[in-house]
Amino acid sequence: MTKILVLGGDGYLGWPLALSFAEQGNHVTIMDNLAKRKWEMECGSMPLFEVFPIHRRVLNFKEQSGKEIQYFIGDVTNVGALYHIFDTANPDVVIHCAGQPSGPFSMRNRASAIITQENSYLGTINVLFAVQRAMRPVHLVVLGSMGAYGISGNIRDGSPEVDGGKEPLLFTNQPESFQQLANANVSVALSFASRNWELSITELRLGLVYGFWTTATSDVPSLQTSFYYDAVFGTVANRFSVQAAIGHPLTIYGSGRQERAFLSLQDMVYGVGLTVADPPAMGTFRVLNHFSEVMSVEDLSERMLAAAKRVGLTARVKHVPNRRVERDVHPCVLEGSQLKDMGLNYKRLEQILDENYFRTILNEKDRIDLDIMESYIPWRKH
Amino acid sequence: MTKILVLGGDGYLGWPLALSFAEQGNHVTIMDNLAKRKWEMECGSMPLFEVFPIHRRVLNFKEQSGKEIQYFIGDVTNVGALYHIFDTANPDVVIHCAGQPSGPFSMRNRASAIITQENSYLGTINVLFAVQRAMRPVHLVVLGSMGAYGISGNIRDGSPEVDGGKEPLLFTNQPESFQQLANANVSVALSFASRNWELSITELRLGLVYGFWTTATSDVPSLQTSFYYDAVFGTVANRFSVQAAIGHPLTIYGSGRQERAFLSLQDMVYGVGLTVADPPAMGTFRVLNHFSEVMSVEDLSERMLAAAKRVGLTARVKHVPNRRVERDVHPCVLEGSQLKDMGLNYKRLEQILDENYFRTILNEKDRIDLDIMESYIPWRKH
Repeated sequence: MTKILVLGGDGYLGWPLALSFAEQGNHVTIMDNLAKRKWEMECGSMPLFEVFPIHRRVLNFKEQSGKEIQYFIGDVTNVGALYHIFDTANPDVVIHCAGQPSGPFSMRNRASAIITQENSYLGTINVLFAVQRAMRPVHLVVLGSMGAYGISGNIRDGSPEVDGGKEPLLFTNQPESFQQLANANVSVALSFASRNWELSITELRLGLVYGFWTTATSDVPSLQTSFYYDAVFGTVANRFSVQAAIGHPLTIYGSGRQERAFLSLQDMVYGVGLTVADPPAMGTFRVLNHFSEVMSVEDLSERMLAAAKRVGLTARVKHVPNRRVERDVHPCVLEGSQLKDMGLNYKRLEQILDENYFRTILNEKDRIDLDIMESYIPWRKH
Repeated sequence: MTKILVLGGDGYLGWPLALSFAEQGNHVTIMDNLAKRKWEMECGSMPLFEVFPIHRRVLNFKEQSGKEIQYFIGDVTNVGALYHIFDTANPDVVIHCAGQPSGPFSMRNRASAIITQENSYLGTINVLFAVQRAMRPVHLVVLGSMGAYGISGNIRDGSPEVDGGKEPLLFTNQPESFQQLANANVSVALSFASRNWELSITELRLGLVYGFWTTATSDVPSLQTSFYYDAVFGTVANRFSVQAAIGHPLTIYGSGRQERAFLSLQDMVYGVGLTVADPPAMGTFRVLNHFSEVMSVEDLSERMLAAAKRVGLTARVKHVPNRRVERDVHPCVLEGSQLKDMGLNYKRLEQILDENYFRTILNEKDRIDLDIMESYIPWRKH
């Protein structure tokens, strides 16, 4: 039985991870500051499925599975709370997904840009101090984002090389939002801390995560994760899938020729499981890209429309001006995937977006808010 | 007449810069939170020359030169103060040297690591917002450090290339302290903001700055800059020069074969002057390495002893254990220097460390505190 502490365990990624590890018989503790729920209120966003308060979710899970999850409300930027929870949970593995996850949110205004750095970057530095002061070795698994590579197009798993191999280099650091900036800088902090304190750290750089079903939560509505489809907290694939379900145009920002990496929520969970089962040696910082497919936003929209059509749903695409500052045509070549080598058999988009998927969205049709799907945060002027 | 705002204008670098620009007839405003003076108290450090309160320094300067410098006490992390000062000073050029400058200070404990990020990294993000909201174009000049390159050995001016030139890349991002981490991440923030908001930004990556004389302050003790020789705030060259002056062993951490770039305070001022006179276009982020010489710490100690000997002073070196975690042998190859091409004729160490230099140190002999020259902050455990 592994002791696992999930930072950000109330979130879209953290909650299904906590459930999955608890189902497998591990001792799971959640720490979350519930900040995302507040930010969501500020932006008028609402998850597609009703998300119960965390104490209720944990009770529901116990009723369903007979298994306990311990939870604490606390902020990783509050070091007193963080150290207390570390001392109580005494984890073998820390899964850190407590960062502010939205690019548009980080670009709202100065306060949001700073909150993003405090939450993600300063919070992670506190986590690193908590890990280095722990009494026994900890494997820290950080859920980062492919976005940290920014506008760089050619990315290999692990370390690209500078000047023909004379210098190893981990990151390309050309972010396109304050959130990507925080993510990129978190990576540098992880790398430094691993070198300086000889910590075992894995950073998973996730593609844009989509979907809601994982094995643990598939059939239990009250255990559903917080699935967003709005322009601030919803990823493009989640937004498109809701638009396709209800016959609303799929809104493409700009040309749609920006290529992005994608990952289903289910595969996200499997990949973290494989990562936890295979920790790197102490003093090693490992970066693993975690994605199933790379495609342009336009290709995504076409595949989404085709998937919807297969189950009798009809929608179309609509190009809208891009409020972001980003490369309009952004090729992305990803070579290799260590997680595939470690046994992960990624699902394709079409395997996730089946009839059941669209039906589940349509069950919540009355909750869907068209307003919040409109992009309104400009990148340029504040 | 250029309007120049110097952030951190009470500091070792900022004060001589403010004086030099004011002497040349520019309209100079200083903003400083005086934090360095507090940190210095906490560490028991004291500058070699008595440093007057800023209001006194500014008055003394007016008496000497007939020129006015405006000053504000304020913190760049306090956005209300920052915006107010920007609106009042309405600068053409902002010289930003308001960061926490010490590696050992940043490694003291968690609080110091976090303060360093807040002060340097979050502070810079506020500065970037202040620049982008200004009513007219601003050239932002940021005084960074060669330390941001970290353990990377081969560094060219500007952009190294990843994968044989397929991707341009600005930074190597392998810092060796929380201060270098902040500096490296500041660079990524500058680069992002320049791209996103089309700002004109120059980052000067300084070698380790040494010395105290600049043209403006050479003959006026009450205008002297805050020169540190202690193990926390003194650079290795300043510490060595004080040790050599008083016949105390020059303490080398570890092998002494770590190569570092160096820069005299005087040339630092000239280089910033050349940079201000030649701003990059809007939307351009320019990185200029700013250093006179590269040498190992051991070579530095030998040249320091020789310089002292020429003026009749005798000292020796002493190897002490290295409390830092760093490459013990760290070759550093620097190719090219745009500032040389722009007309800067760098002085060698021996041109700075003349009889006058050592005599000035010896005039303050009674103030020198041997205790604070001992390194006591370990990198490894906190």
